[in-house]
Amino acid sequence: MECSYCNELKSRNYGNFIFQTDYWIVFLAPNQSNIGTCVVALKRHYGNLAGLKSEEWVDFGEIVQKLESALKKAFNTSIFNWESLMNADYLQKQPDPHVHWHFIPRYNHKIQFNDLIFEDPDFGHMKSRPIRKIPDNIREKIIEKIKNNFY
Amino acid sequence: MECSYCNELKSRNYGNFIFQTDYWIVFLAPNQSNIGTCVVALKRHYGNLAGLKSEEWVDFGEIVQKLESALKKAFNTSIFNWESLMNADYLQKQPDPHVHWHFIPRYNHKIQFNDLIFEDPDFGHMKSRPIRKIPDNIREKIIEKIKNNFY
Repeated sequence: MECSYCNELKSRNYGNFIFQTDYWIVFLAPNQSNIGTCVVALKRHYGNLAGLKSEEWVDFGEIVQKLESALKKAFNTSIFNWESLMNADYLQKQPDPHVHWHFIPRYNHKIQFNDLIFEDPDFGHMKSRPIRKIPDNIREKIIEKIKNNFY
Repeated sequence: MECSYCNELKSRNYGNFIFQTDYWIVFLAPNQSNIGTCVVALKRHYGNLAGLKSEEWVDFGEIVQKLESALKKAFNTSIFNWESLMNADYLQKQPDPHVHWHFIPRYNHKIQFNDLIFEDPDFGHMKSRPIRKIPDNIREKIIEKIKNNFY
């Protein structure tokens, strides 16, 4: 299921491949504090949001629609936070940023998925929380559930 | 200089009008912890990023380019964070969200502007900081400086 871009992007630790479009690749993020958190990375190696082409913005808009719709159906997500920060890249000695978005589903209720409970105690706020790692087999099941809810 | 939309959006406390395009209005945000922080609000009243039209995305992309370029020239901004959260709207009893973006310039250096010093002690990270209010006349000067650096 993986594409050649995933290997290029592996060193960036964006997570597990979910799907791709003409211009973007979507990964299930390493941190699953909020279940369904994803990273949406530009396929071409480019470091500046200001230089995106019109067709890349339009394609991104379609991903926003597809992901939000799937997450709502899969986990009854309440709202969605989208962030393009690229802060961490600039802590490197030689910054080599790559355009990507953090897609953070937010929940006003608990979610039970398999044996795990996911909570969003800061719903309505943006606070940093500890990174939550979950087992690989559960990650695969989350990806499957998201994909099963694509229109 | 204000348009009819600004009055509609006034209750949302997005800040002071800077400029508008076909689909978006840009304000200097109330919080100037990081000098040049803006809010980019959709003109039509609509609450869901997933429902933006292609032309609204393309227009947004042009704003990203215009604002980032102006801020770099005006204040030598290091990088830019973009966020669409709409968290606060969902703390209301009857949420009535309105699509808007937070544009947060980030600095790896101090900026002196008139008599004020602006610092970004958490450069490279996303941490919440206290809201910083500054005098209206300085806000006007920041807007003027941004506008003078538009291409």
